[in-house]
Amino acid sequence: MSFTLDRDRLVETMREQADIGGTENGGLHRLALSDADKAVRDWFDERLTELGLDVRVDEFGNMFARREGADPDADPLLLGSHLDSQPYGGIYDGALGVVAAMEFVHELEARDIETERPVEVVNWTNEEGSRFQPAMQGSGVWAGELDLEEEYAKTGADGNTVEEELERIGYKGDEPAAPRGDYDAYLELHIEQGPFLEENDSDVGVVTGIVGFTWGATTYYGEADHTGSTPMQYRSDALVAAADVVTQVRRIPSTLGDRTVGTVGSIEAEPDSINIIPGEVTFTWGFRDPKREVIDEAKERVLDEIDAAAEREGVDYEWEERMDVDPVHFAERCTSAVADAADALGYDAMEVFSGAGHDATYANQVCDTAMVFAVSEGGKSHTEEEYTSWDDCYAAANTYARAALTLAGRAN
Amino acid sequence: MSFTLDRDRLVETMREQADIGGTENGGLHRLALSDADKAVRDWFDERLTELGLDVRVDEFGNMFARREGADPDADPLLLGSHLDSQPYGGIYDGALGVVAAMEFVHELEARDIETERPVEVVNWTNEEGSRFQPAMQGSGVWAGELDLEEEYAKTGADGNTVEEELERIGYKGDEPAAPRGDYDAYLELHIEQGPFLEENDSDVGVVTGIVGFTWGATTYYGEADHTGSTPMQYRSDALVAAADVVTQVRRIPSTLGDRTVGTVGSIEAEPDSINIIPGEVTFTWGFRDPKREVIDEAKERVLDEIDAAAEREGVDYEWEERMDVDPVHFAERCTSAVADAADALGYDAMEVFSGAGHDATYANQVCDTAMVFAVSEGGKSHTEEEYTSWDDCYAAANTYARAALTLAGRAN
Repeated sequence: MSFTLDRDRLVETMREQADIGGTENGGLHRLALSDADKAVRDWFDERLTELGLDVRVDEFGNMFARREGADPDADPLLLGSHLDSQPYGGIYDGALGVVAAMEFVHELEARDIETERPVEVVNWTNEEGSRFQPAMQGSGVWAGELDLEEEYAKTGADGNTVEEELERIGYKGDEPAAPRGDYDAYLELHIEQGPFLEENDSDVGVVTGIVGFTWGATTYYGEADHTGSTPMQYRSDALVAAADVVTQVRRIPSTLGDRTVGTVGSIEAEPDSINIIPGEVTFTWGFRDPKREVIDEAKERVLDEIDAAAEREGVDYEWEERMDVDPVHFAERCTSAVADAADALGYDAMEVFSGAGHDATYANQVCDTAMVFAVSEGGKSHTEEEYTSWDDCYAAANTYARAALTLAGRAN
Repeated sequence: MSFTLDRDRLVETMREQADIGGTENGGLHRLALSDADKAVRDWFDERLTELGLDVRVDEFGNMFARREGADPDADPLLLGSHLDSQPYGGIYDGALGVVAAMEFVHELEARDIETERPVEVVNWTNEEGSRFQPAMQGSGVWAGELDLEEEYAKTGADGNTVEEELERIGYKGDEPAAPRGDYDAYLELHIEQGPFLEENDSDVGVVTGIVGFTWGATTYYGEADHTGSTPMQYRSDALVAAADVVTQVRRIPSTLGDRTVGTVGSIEAEPDSINIIPGEVTFTWGFRDPKREVIDEAKERVLDEIDAAAEREGVDYEWEERMDVDPVHFAERCTSAVADAADALGYDAMEVFSGAGHDATYANQVCDTAMVFAVSEGGKSHTEEEYTSWDDCYAAANTYARAALTLAGRAN
């Protein structure tokens, strides 16, 4: 059996979605629950309905399109990713994963293939977490890891809540936001968003797990005095303390592991004036690693450093946890299906651990899961410069489709 | 001769001005060219007109109230400060200096004293530089150090220009914004905004000069990658480079002089997200010292550090100078007048160098100048907690008034 997707159609479908919220520079600006998100949801619904699938929307806006299998009582295979994007992000990100799943069912139709299990294609709500925090919100609610009402109430910078925006774009469905029965497995294709595949000249990545992470925010409280008339020894400069921690967050990973990363991504100084010593500085910090104990160690170290920096500069502080997610290790039967598919198709595949979180993190709470990674040129993502060649898109999508067919089982 | 001010009237006049733009917490929110600034200007005009002075307004809004002397051809003595405040600043700052000058001429009237020289009381436009940059704008234009048209065109956060706001509040006058003939001397009373007087149990400060300063801003350009999937060795983190410089700016003064100060007051990271490595960070830096060569050395060092941090983190950068002002050393005849006045009044005076810039910096370009400092409790300023006891206000104002009488010369 040689089961591969139609390359031209894959490219055409990718281009169609990329036009919805596309930017001048060839990127994508399709924030969760925006008008562009509504448009791409309408497109997803239309395309899959045309293919004869039954599309349903849950109360958190997650969309599921079902194709029945030979055994209607078998637990379905769930396939998909997300169609929302970062602000001025790239056209591949999660979209390639949804398109690959759509092309898989399209190819089943085109070849008149029946699967043993039902297959469902999902488009998760707000994976990006940029307009509304947190990330992976739709899959998190669906998996029961996030609370529906709490997430409904989250507001974006424009002051609207998730629930209001779901209603506004007409995607607050009637179905409960929860698994409808058991699922056999979840398979997700995503771009790597990292450099390993390209570095190693691999065609496709077999993802064996997802790093866990801990996120926090610290606020230092110093004294907002005049920069000219306050001698150095009288100062309690909140920014100096924060700078110490930024430096330590850069250093800590190198003391822990070769996969550990640490970042201060956001910083705000008050009153933020050239002529006033920063009296209050809030910054975020985060660490990721495949191992839970390494994450815990990184957190302990940064909290020690935060305390030491406060002591040195004579400032007070408080900190809060923002998010904490355990590392995920995917089921062997699913990762094997991906590895075998790549092998059968003659692709040079490489096992990788995902450094970014994905909807698969939450789906893995519900059923066995695996992921396929497509090459990310230069490891760039969340920017308009994100790029995956059509060849690399095709290699990953074919691997994905073949693994999906293995997991769904061919009935004819 | 025992020439002292009326303590009750001084307090009353201070309270009157503090009510105009006063805040709930006992501070002052009277931004340059705001409605509150217009109201306090009207009050200044009314009070001094009542005292028989002739008030004129120049084209940059600087207000001058003239009391003729016995010799109308003598070069006048200029007295005053500024009535604008920082956002939610204190009620003393420049206002105490204007009130002391007003109380001086009030006392001359009350005692029917004629001075040899004409005396002019000035209220400078926009000393604070918070709504419109730069600071000391009115005195800078008047002294010919800033260009009228350039400063007219400066815009605040609300998008209005200085010129539009001067017109709106009716304080764009007809007089050229330049000295009307020669001035003999300028004398300014201001709160210290620093801790030295209080630390040394002094009643009043004899200011012998004002530190110079250099201000700049640097932008680092790194790579805004995903925090999870970008290994540490692939990163060019603009915030890590900036943090290095913050640390060095904290250290550099300690290697240069006991009066040197250095500060990073403002910092902005882009995209400023917990989940994205900062790709662009802009921050300001500044150094002050009484000696020009120390300022130059500090600037050279920070530019070296900026370059070294860029090299270490693999980021690009650019920097720009924001302001550079030479140190000022006041004329001995003026500082002596202040020291002698404090001595004659039995106050414990201390020579200090001003760490903050003042309108006296620019006035000193036009004529001999000196300043009197009032005690600042805890050195606090530019905040609602700024505090000078009425006793300390009175000591400084009396010293100021007596020195002014010396400089103006008593004719009867």
